[in-house]
Amino acid sequence: MPTATLPKHYTDLIALKRQAGTLGSIAALVSWDQETYMPPAGAKARAEQSSLLAGIIHERNTSPKLGDLLAQCQADNDLNAESTPEGANLREMRRDYDLATKLPNELVKALALAQSQAQEAWKHARANNDFPSFVNDLTKVLDLTREKGECYGYKPDGEVYDALINEYEPDTTAKEIEAVFTPLRDQLSAFIADLTANGTPPQTDFLSRSIPVEKQHRFGQEITARLGFDYNAGRLDTTTHPFCSGFGPGDTRMTTRYEPTNFPDAVGSTMHECGHGLYEQGLPKSGELFGTPLASAVSLGIHESQSRMWENMVGRGQPFWNWALPVANKHFDNAFGDIDLDTFVKSMNTCTPSFIRVESDESTYNLHVMLRFELERAMISGDLAIKDLPAAWNEKFKSFLGLDVPDDARGCLQDVHWSFGLVGYFPTYTLGNLYAAQMWETINSQIPDLDQQMAAGEFSALLTWLRENIHQHGRRYSAAQLCERTTSKPLDAAPLMRHLQRRVKPAYGM
Amino acid sequence: MPTATLPKHYTDLIALKRQAGTLGSIAALVSWDQETYMPPAGAKARAEQSSLLAGIIHERNTSPKLGDLLAQCQADNDLNAESTPEGANLREMRRDYDLATKLPNELVKALALAQSQAQEAWKHARANNDFPSFVNDLTKVLDLTREKGECYGYKPDGEVYDALINEYEPDTTAKEIEAVFTPLRDQLSAFIADLTANGTPPQTDFLSRSIPVEKQHRFGQEITARLGFDYNAGRLDTTTHPFCSGFGPGDTRMTTRYEPTNFPDAVGSTMHECGHGLYEQGLPKSGELFGTPLASAVSLGIHESQSRMWENMVGRGQPFWNWALPVANKHFDNAFGDIDLDTFVKSMNTCTPSFIRVESDESTYNLHVMLRFELERAMISGDLAIKDLPAAWNEKFKSFLGLDVPDDARGCLQDVHWSFGLVGYFPTYTLGNLYAAQMWETINSQIPDLDQQMAAGEFSALLTWLRENIHQHGRRYSAAQLCERTTSKPLDAAPLMRHLQRRVKPAYGM
Repeated sequence: MPTATLPKHYTDLIALKRQAGTLGSIAALVSWDQETYMPPAGAKARAEQSSLLAGIIHERNTSPKLGDLLAQCQADNDLNAESTPEGANLREMRRDYDLATKLPNELVKALALAQSQAQEAWKHARANNDFPSFVNDLTKVLDLTREKGECYGYKPDGEVYDALINEYEPDTTAKEIEAVFTPLRDQLSAFIADLTANGTPPQTDFLSRSIPVEKQHRFGQEITARLGFDYNAGRLDTTTHPFCSGFGPGDTRMTTRYEPTNFPDAVGSTMHECGHGLYEQGLPKSGELFGTPLASAVSLGIHESQSRMWENMVGRGQPFWNWALPVANKHFDNAFGDIDLDTFVKSMNTCTPSFIRVESDESTYNLHVMLRFELERAMISGDLAIKDLPAAWNEKFKSFLGLDVPDDARGCLQDVHWSFGLVGYFPTYTLGNLYAAQMWETINSQIPDLDQQMAAGEFSALLTWLRENIHQHGRRYSAAQLCERTTSKPLDAAPLMRHLQRRVKPAYGM
Repeated sequence: MPTATLPKHYTDLIALKRQAGTLGSIAALVSWDQETYMPPAGAKARAEQSSLLAGIIHERNTSPKLGDLLAQCQADNDLNAESTPEGANLREMRRDYDLATKLPNELVKALALAQSQAQEAWKHARANNDFPSFVNDLTKVLDLTREKGECYGYKPDGEVYDALINEYEPDTTAKEIEAVFTPLRDQLSAFIADLTANGTPPQTDFLSRSIPVEKQHRFGQEITARLGFDYNAGRLDTTTHPFCSGFGPGDTRMTTRYEPTNFPDAVGSTMHECGHGLYEQGLPKSGELFGTPLASAVSLGIHESQSRMWENMVGRGQPFWNWALPVANKHFDNAFGDIDLDTFVKSMNTCTPSFIRVESDESTYNLHVMLRFELERAMISGDLAIKDLPAAWNEKFKSFLGLDVPDDARGCLQDVHWSFGLVGYFPTYTLGNLYAAQMWETINSQIPDLDQQMAAGEFSALLTWLRENIHQHGRRYSAAQLCERTTSKPLDAAPLMRHLQRRVKPAYGM
């Protein structure tokens, strides 16, 4: 219904959410500054600022007044139809309110304490390759995380893991993920074994040529501006760990990192964060909906689909480099002037099983993720005892990637996630790749000359498609619904496999 | 009394103040980011963030709980002795609480609206040199500002202007300021007339040699680090209008500005903000007192005394440049290699009456300030009708500085302050110069070889003196008390006059 005729209980509700959203945007700035410009000695006071703000935001997101207005709106049949934007907004506000209010205070405090202790224990354990010293703390965090899932609740035919995924990928279940992951895992393992046995790795030595950081930065700014990132409403800065934060209307901040002799890492990070940034800039934040679900991202999986599409589907393809390689050579004093386009593109599409997830290539990355999904699901259900994690990890790693894990530091201790109690988070990385690949096929069928456009440095038709089909909807539709609406099919492993076959096999001369 | 034995009503009170201080430090970061890194399109949301935060902070600073604890503490004779830190802290918290709670909500709102309208009117009036179009809005702001002063209250033998100064320079009255300003004004006018008639202006043409901005920045960082600014707990960035913001423990941010052909402007701004920064870094914020008056700056005048001392007493002197000129030449590819030290120092000590305050030199600056003090005092008392401001301005300008003001844009319309209702703010600029000069004489008598130390690039004895005598006390003593404690005399015009005579006359060959 038109805004003018919306009832007061609804406009009051979105005004409250806007305030909480505004406070959230301040918290995002405070975090961004901590990673970018804060002087080292500011860390202690910064922790106090962040914790105070988090408390104020939590108070507002759980306030009885908000709960009352929400109940009033949901009892209002004119508002509550699922097919309307207001109905979808209320459905998602209810989800958020329940997630924020369902946990007893004691559990929240116990979890915060356990997380902070487990993180210290994890740092020590990883540094000393000493998993046994981490077992007790990890067990405590996972026990409390399981308890959290039980408080959230899940369907009778589901499992506690479903409740935990809900924080990151709403309306998805472990069984649904398993149904897509299992064929992908088998096909990927076979694909990688085939490449390893029968392919010839492409030449990559030239990628480590030294390129000054400032030149890499200017190149990154030029390409992201061309992809469509609006620098009038955003920035690109440098941090150890790249991230993107959409503060609110007109302010989206990306970060990346540079190493003189690792140009592909910077390009990949920059295009990845740009994908997140374009999504944030495309959410309808500028009107009165800022702070409500309709102006927020659907899920981590969909957010990741945007970053992965620009990083991988666009950023490792021949069309993109047809335009971008001369741009790079312009910025880099012709550093790759002796490398032909075909050789260059092949170098961006390697596939080599390795131990560390964050350093892995586009294909093997998904095996790293699926391994974690299976293990964390088993730990949360109780099927896998925490003390048995290293053996289970190493066995699966051998089976998925064909490698013998040399030690736990390069095995089950490599990621911080579990010490934070982040369970259900890992699968969203591969869900992002799957959504991206499936949408990419649709996009190419709907924009038949997309390759030619990209080869000419023209990305606006692609961005327009994403704006119209994904960005503008905020959380109106679930990730699965967006997938069905745009591709007319449920999520499936085949498009990602086809994408990898098309890209990687030629790079290996197959 | 030792912290361990402080009663609960006092520790609860400082815990509340610490929370408000922490929120204030977030607001400071939000403002700093707005001036430094925020993308242009973020402005609208930023205004919403700032206003929301300001509301939350005001709510906390005026909360009945804070008022109750304060009353309880002030009724506690063990705490309330003026001679103890706790007693001073309570006295100043009471001042802040009264300032925050004495104004009726309607007045606060009316003033905010009038200020915003007057600022727009001022911009238009200045651009069009059209004072009459500004009269109504300025009148409204000043009427409401007078009303604000009446709400704050003042001594029976005082005037409403005293109540307004209290926001910026507590415990000072218009009469006290007048008693110092009047002799200064007469002596300065005579001094400048003498220089103009009998002196030979120093050579300054080489100061506009072009020096790349990045090199000026690195020079600024090197000298401020040497002065004692801790870059582990602070930063130096670039903004249109330089400022310094002490966010809280471990985080003090200075900004400056650069023009390739105006090196002295950058050096002056940088050393000025560094003086503010050193004060902020010297306040006892790192312990439990953060957010309370004992960890806050005394007054704008004392804050300005710190910036002026480093900018002028240090930064325009021969000892400093004996060390700094070779450093500048190192950074600037010997840009001043052909200029001897004496010639260079003379160029930094010119005195030329001009129309614009912010572009004026160390001597004439004070006449600009005193003129504003006299005029705003007369406008607030009602002795000067707003419509008569231009004539009064021009007449005083002729009498103080010997120049005929060509138009109001270069006259009474040049500053934004009055459209904000900032009355009582201007005099703190010259109070800062006066405090700086008077303390500078004491410091030189107590550190007899200070000139030799500075000539060797050694500033730690000076900084230690400031830390011990000014910074560490926060608001324990008033500005006047600090002056008496450190110089054994009340504030007086003579030291500043002696300083200018010593500096400027030689530059004019007198």
